[in-house]
Amino acid sequence: MPAYATNMRLKFPILALILEIITIILFAVFVDYDDGKGHGHDSHSNSSETHHEEKPMDLYPMFQDVHVMIFIGFGFLMTFLKRYGFSSVGINLLLAAFGLQWGLLMQGVWHLVDGKIKINIFKIINADFSTATVLISFGAVLGKTSPVQLLIMTILEITIFSINEHLVATVLEANDVGASMIIHAYGAYFGLAVARVLYRPGLRNGHENEGSVYHSDLFAMIGTVFLWMFWPSFNSAIADPGLTQLTAVINTYLSLAACVLSAYAISSLVEHKGKLDMVHIQNATLAGGVAVGTCADMNIGPFGAMLIGLVAGIISTLGFKFLSPILASSVGIQDTCGVHNLHGMPGILGGLAGIVAVSLGKKEGGDPVMQAAALASSLGFALVGGAVTGFIMKLPFWGQPPDQNCYDDSLYWEVPEEEDENEESLAHADHSKNKAEV
Amino acid sequence: MPAYATNMRLKFPILALILEIITIILFAVFVDYDDGKGHGHDSHSNSSETHHEEKPMDLYPMFQDVHVMIFIGFGFLMTFLKRYGFSSVGINLLLAAFGLQWGLLMQGVWHLVDGKIKINIFKIINADFSTATVLISFGAVLGKTSPVQLLIMTILEITIFSINEHLVATVLEANDVGASMIIHAYGAYFGLAVARVLYRPGLRNGHENEGSVYHSDLFAMIGTVFLWMFWPSFNSAIADPGLTQLTAVINTYLSLAACVLSAYAISSLVEHKGKLDMVHIQNATLAGGVAVGTCADMNIGPFGAMLIGLVAGIISTLGFKFLSPILASSVGIQDTCGVHNLHGMPGILGGLAGIVAVSLGKKEGGDPVMQAAALASSLGFALVGGAVTGFIMKLPFWGQPPDQNCYDDSLYWEVPEEEDENEESLAHADHSKNKAEV
Amino acid sequence: MPAYATNMRLKFPILALILEIITIILFAVFVDYDDGKGHGHDSHSNSSETHHEEKPMDLYPMFQDVHVMIFIGFGFLMTFLKRYGFSSVGINLLLAAFGLQWGLLMQGVWHLVDGKIKINIFKIINADFSTATVLISFGAVLGKTSPVQLLIMTILEITIFSINEHLVATVLEANDVGASMIIHAYGAYFGLAVARVLYRPGLRNGHENEGSVYHSDLFAMIGTVFLWMFWPSFNSAIADPGLTQLTAVINTYLSLAACVLSAYAISSLVEHKGKLDMVHIQNATLAGGVAVGTCADMNIGPFGAMLIGLVAGIISTLGFKFLSPILASSVGIQDTCGVHNLHGMPGILGGLAGIVAVSLGKKEGGDPVMQAAALASSLGFALVGGAVTGFIMKLPFWGQPPDQNCYDDSLYWEVPEEEDENEESLAHADHSKNKAEV
Repeated sequence: MPAYATNMRLKFPILALILEIITIILFAVFVDYDDGKGHGHDSHSNSSETHHEEKPMDLYPMFQDVHVMIFIGFGFLMTFLKRYGFSSVGINLLLAAFGLQWGLLMQGVWHLVDGKIKINIFKIINADFSTATVLISFGAVLGKTSPVQLLIMTILEITIFSINEHLVATVLEANDVGASMIIHAYGAYFGLAVARVLYRPGLRNGHENEGSVYHSDLFAMIGTVFLWMFWPSFNSAIADPGLTQLTAVINTYLSLAACVLSAYAISSLVEHKGKLDMVHIQNATLAGGVAVGTCADMNIGPFGAMLIGLVAGIISTLGFKFLSPILASSVGIQDTCGVHNLHGMPGILGGLAGIVAVSLGKKEGGDPVMQAAALASSLGFALVGGAVTGFIMKLPFWGQPPDQNCYDDSLYWEVPEEEDENEESLAHADHSKNKAEV
Repeated sequence: MPAYATNMRLKFPILALILEIITIILFAVFVDYDDGKGHGHDSHSNSSETHHEEKPMDLYPMFQDVHVMIFIGFGFLMTFLKRYGFSSVGINLLLAAFGLQWGLLMQGVWHLVDGKIKINIFKIINADFSTATVLISFGAVLGKTSPVQLLIMTILEITIFSINEHLVATVLEANDVGASMIIHAYGAYFGLAVARVLYRPGLRNGHENEGSVYHSDLFAMIGTVFLWMFWPSFNSAIADPGLTQLTAVINTYLSLAACVLSAYAISSLVEHKGKLDMVHIQNATLAGGVAVGTCADMNIGPFGAMLIGLVAGIISTLGFKFLSPILASSVGIQDTCGVHNLHGMPGILGGLAGIVAVSLGKKEGGDPVMQAAALASSLGFALVGGAVTGFIMKLPFWGQPPDQNCYDDSLYWEVPEEEDENEESLAHADHSKNKAEV
Repeated sequence: MPAYATNMRLKFPILALILEIITIILFAVFVDYDDGKGHGHDSHSNSSETHHEEKPMDLYPMFQDVHVMIFIGFGFLMTFLKRYGFSSVGINLLLAAFGLQWGLLMQGVWHLVDGKIKINIFKIINADFSTATVLISFGAVLGKTSPVQLLIMTILEITIFSINEHLVATVLEANDVGASMIIHAYGAYFGLAVARVLYRPGLRNGHENEGSVYHSDLFAMIGTVFLWMFWPSFNSAIADPGLTQLTAVINTYLSLAACVLSAYAISSLVEHKGKLDMVHIQNATLAGGVAVGTCADMNIGPFGAMLIGLVAGIISTLGFKFLSPILASSVGIQDTCGVHNLHGMPGILGGLAGIVAVSLGKKEGGDPVMQAAALASSLGFALVGGAVTGFIMKLPFWGQPPDQNCYDDSLYWEVPEEEDENEESLAHADHSKNKAEV
């Protein structure tokens, strides 16, 4: 396996330490606490509506909900693979911890105050948001990339995200309070473009580790349920305080509830003997949160939010069942977690719903042309940015794992004596006492 | 197995989709956002004390705590069974997601404003609460009912709950801030009545899947601990703001702490060699939260709350050890999760404590006769409603599982090749080397 | 095994019930709700700055974050051992539930109002904090002590903690808002002193159960990530409201993020083939939260916080790799969870950083001499108090487990037929068909 140079001993620690030290230096020069003077917040949804927090800690509980989604939600959602749980939750932590620092810098440069980025709760919520794009893309390439490749992806994806976000929010002045377009669609298509460039013909017929075991599916449900519960905070955290924020909470709460029913129904409808499929339940139940994002703070009516959720649950489940296999076999996109079904299509649905809702006058001051431009911009930056990033990640010295070691923690982690191996050694104990210890 | 018609392919998806579409239509006609005009909240505990939120999002952090209890708490608490984790956390999500929509409608019809149900944070907390009754009853019939049966139970149980809640809070004007009576006792006895009607003689001697494995018990502890931690929010969420709410938090915090000590002590006292039993720890440690519910916002003194918790932990643990086997063998009630011990008896204890506390003048304006009437009403609606619901659920076309497939996810879920099965195939490797690699 | 008297049947239940009943009596005499009159809060960080909550429930969301850290965070962090998960999360719950009651009393006696301890949210946050010291020490002796021994440790450690806290906060008026010194360093060295006294030569060469399995490491990551996410609440909960509290949040958020990068880098650098070690990831990623504690509310600059986190991640990981084996072999300290690396050294680092920061004028009114005295006092009380407590715990009638039963739940818990055992029986099925079905 030396041809692949998967040994991380020097390249990973050196990269990680250098990145962190550079980041600290940049923070020393550019970053300070927000002392509340010289304000003028700008949400990524609509910079024309100035956001005023009344007290510095008002948004803190919402920040913590988003924080849980990023670190527990995304981290555990990806633990469904039988032998890739350490990487899922562990690399998720690594990428998000670096990404939030990088996001603070990249988002902050557009809004300097006296040459400084002034940090407050609103800013760290947005920093957490910026990491979500990376974690979504991580899902598309899960099990097939090294930590070094993923750190590089983090830098590039967040940098490009910050440009697109600035364009959408400040230049186009489009609405995207729950970030259907600028986080979910962007993160998904960015990741899919990377996955396309990193296509592995050798995995065309699957891989023995690309599946779950009983308990890994339960660990994944921890991620699913935390994402599901706190999604109202994700979609409302940066909404205008008061009734607008309440609207965002209620729309998201109801869209997700409706989405659960349709995801369960379609899963049962398309599966063998009407059984439910854990992949659908773990993912498609969340599509309602993605799809209602752009419209979350609009006056679409509770039933409007539920309709969006209902449709999102249907297309997401159908995507897992019918579209993902086609993408893998015909388009060369091996999307490990099915981010196209959870974030891609529902993200576009959210963008389209936003265009319709703004056309119908559901958001004061909204402009459907700018909404469409925001969707196009997000998709464009994602596909081009993802493709370029993919080619950089494909360079042969980043320690990409060989096909046979994909979806396997033991390449990058010290893995303990495990139940399965244990079993094997026990089962074989009668025959070869000597090799019992694995 | 065709006689049981457990194949869900058509009946489950059709029922789920029709229910959701009807619900969306009802929302389109009757439901709107609460714009803060024409208020006049009504808590289910005491409608005479009008509840005033100062800002629309004030209760949001408490809502999220309750949300976690409903979806993570109840969901994972029931994952203790070795082969029923998917259903526990998955069907929990399904029932709660539908139930909260139904609860919004059923609770809302009593308090229309201009012919509309106006949603706010207070309303969605109550919607979450209404689902708790179903999730408690779910525990009594866990492993022995189909998703179709459970959706039917959800509709009926929440509808009847809303009638009883209205009676208790608005007509009787009884106190039940933490819902010992109207949620816990009601949910438990409703579920026990259903379980009695669905009695399975074939499971009289147990079932090989009706037990835990090491890791399933740890998953269940996730549910236990989240319920335990956030219970102060459950009991105080709809209390009057300020010192009354603080009292509800402190009483619940202390009752639960005292309850842990007594549950551990009694578990060790009654078990073989003084060992602790996970069933007791997972459940009886929570009885203090149930039992202090009715009195939570009363001036019972910190030590009063602790005494209630101490007693609750004792009777709950003793119930698991001595009463549950008798209920199963002599009364024909097979209570899978022991909801009688966690919600039933502690709920009644809570109702009785409320009568005593009100008699002693611990709640301004309280009337012990009305408290007693509220307890009787809750038990009456539960037993009659549960029995009727049980007979409807017993109709032979809802896909009820046959005895031998009880407590087994694989009837309703695609279940991955699992460690256990793996082991078996490995253990059989001696006979058929070819199929050893799964 | 009768010589060890590990049977808990009488001594554990009697001790637990007597302790709880005494506690309830003390609460009846001394404790009441805080009605908001006659205030005058005192934080353990700086009693000279009076802490004013504007409304009784303002701190409640932060309290719940801390609560999650205590019960989920500490509890699951220790589930990494393959056969000790029940004890980790279960005994954690027991000790914390008793400890918070005891802490309310011990901390409260220093601040009586009209002869009463008046409970509010601020007080229950501090009560939760007091239990953290015990849970840290629990990590040092995990797997080698009985529940009876641990209850005794809880009483003594919290009592001594309350004396040191009073000395540090009120007499010395030192700053320690995030409690690097009075909780982390104190808890760690107290536990290490106990571990030294309870040294077991028989475990010099390790124990077969002193390791993890794949899924136990994932359970532990639940604890790690919840601790990591909510640490900003831990370090800021009792800070002065407003910008000071915001500073504490931001410093902790950034210190932890930087710490992740250095912990991962050093783990890969020192491990075989550059692989990551779960022990480091589960623990050293949190050292940044510990080390920034004392300075969290000081004006050290965001980059200052990141530097502290960077250094903490490095020394913590190096400690696990190089120092822990030496402590075990040469000093006779068998530190099961490596609390010296997560809480001990980073706690001292935090104390030293506080001295430097105060010297540089980063905290108004701070005095570096008093900071140094606070660190010395915390270490002194820890070492002396821990040694005395260790000798009391060593008395032969507390049911301490024999060497061969260490790290094994089955000594104190009814443990279900588990996967591993299952496997074994299946593997043996060829030989004895009759006992195959378990």
